[in-house]
Amino acid sequence: MKAITSRDNPLYKRLKALAGSTHQQRRSGHALLEGFHLASAYLDVAGQPETCVVTEGALRHDEAQAIVARIDERRIVTLPDALFGQLSSVVNGVGMLLLVEKLDEALPERVRQGCIVLDGVQDAGNVGSILRSAAAAGIGHVFCAPGTAYAWSSKVLRSGMGAHFLLQIHEDVEPQTLIERLDVPVAITDSHGAQAIYDTDLSGPVAWVFGNEGAGVSQAWRDAVTYRVTIPQPGGMESLNVAAAAAVCLFEQCRQQRGHEPRASS
Amino acid sequence: MKAITSRDNPLYKRLKALAGSTHQQRRSGHALLEGFHLASAYLDVAGQPETCVVTEGALRHDEAQAIVARIDERRIVTLPDALFGQLSSVVNGVGMLLLVEKLDEALPERVRQGCIVLDGVQDAGNVGSILRSAAAAGIGHVFCAPGTAYAWSSKVLRSGMGAHFLLQIHEDVEPQTLIERLDVPVAITDSHGAQAIYDTDLSGPVAWVFGNEGAGVSQAWRDAVTYRVTIPQPGGMESLNVAAAAAVCLFEQCRQQRGHEPRASS
Repeated sequence: MKAITSRDNPLYKRLKALAGSTHQQRRSGHALLEGFHLASAYLDVAGQPETCVVTEGALRHDEAQAIVARIDERRIVTLPDALFGQLSSVVNGVGMLLLVEKLDEALPERVRQGCIVLDGVQDAGNVGSILRSAAAAGIGHVFCAPGTAYAWSSKVLRSGMGAHFLLQIHEDVEPQTLIERLDVPVAITDSHGAQAIYDTDLSGPVAWVFGNEGAGVSQAWRDAVTYRVTIPQPGGMESLNVAAAAAVCLFEQCRQQRGHEPRASS
Repeated sequence: MKAITSRDNPLYKRLKALAGSTHQQRRSGHALLEGFHLASAYLDVAGQPETCVVTEGALRHDEAQAIVARIDERRIVTLPDALFGQLSSVVNGVGMLLLVEKLDEALPERVRQGCIVLDGVQDAGNVGSILRSAAAAGIGHVFCAPGTAYAWSSKVLRSGMGAHFLLQIHEDVEPQTLIERLDVPVAITDSHGAQAIYDTDLSGPVAWVFGNEGAGVSQAWRDAVTYRVTIPQPGGMESLNVAAAAAVCLFEQCRQQRGHEPRASS
């Protein structure tokens, strides 16, 4: 265990640059996992982090000790509270974060299972909420098109609540590359002239495409659509927040799949 | 139409203090509605704003002119871009905002229709998303318990996308006050030992209670519950974001109510 006490320490400077910039996080392919929950979820699936940063105070917590005990001692550094505070994106955080490379697996050759495509969803809270809903619904793969918020940014990680470690998240996936690999039909929500989601057979796997908050689903994905579903909305609003719509779609599909094995969709 | 050019103008100072502090907005019962969509939604339902603030540049847009034409000229002030920028919470905003009193109606004597209770939901994005889902689902009343994010803050307004003007939103409603007025059963989501939402008869009106992101639904509301429903989650995650869960609940109820009139719940 190594103690950093100076702002001029090179590792500290690197951490601070990463903490202050989602752009830096994305460019370097790194993530800062803050808090006990994300740290232990990471350790469960991915092994050792590059670095574990803790405050002296955090080390007095049983939960922190349990996490620290799982990490190679040479990868642990302690920081004074004041220095840690400048890395933290959480109010009243617990004083622990892991610096890790984002988990990145090769794009599957063929996609035969239900999956999600984030086609330019730009709000980090929306991306995190959709990842969380996807993990809860038992989705395996999430594909993020260019223009989507960086899935491993601190804000997406925080709102994802550990979903990142139950999913395989692929970023910067061009529509055409993925469309060619898809063996499942593509579904989008569309308020114009579409079929009610409740009347659509969703008992088989589909690739759900959720688009940008303003512009919606891009033309490349519109051209690839099999199911254009609408969520009937009896009130006066004409649309839902994209993460709310995603939850409705995913759990309507779960409802339809309840009690029977998935079968090929008609 | 009056032009403000100085930072020392009393109205400008007041606007700036409001723009910088949700606390100030809440304390004064005011809201800043930014952009054309919120401005015209307000004018449709509420009449004249206290003040309409526009930049000279905004006045060149047809959409801005159409809004300005609906407002008493004595209530309109123009600002230079630089001064307006300090009031704006939107990147690349359109240069128009309304200063209004929040819409506040008396608590109904009896609540006989489906409604929503926000029981300490603290994230503004979540509150906005739930309001939007509620308006889309045809809900009439939303009751916010103390501890819930200020429903008329700039961030909630932005994510509500106009839902505020389709709903009646009541704030600082103590649980006991509302429970005594409720003629509809109370429903909460609960992952432990509850009935699947799909197996629960939601064809009648219910009061949906959505709780704090960390602590969940408070004891006062737990004690008042009729339906404790769970959203079956086949994946590994144990919970959904509160706004995602709310969307699933509201639209499962819409699905059940589809094609038949609401009837008294059993």
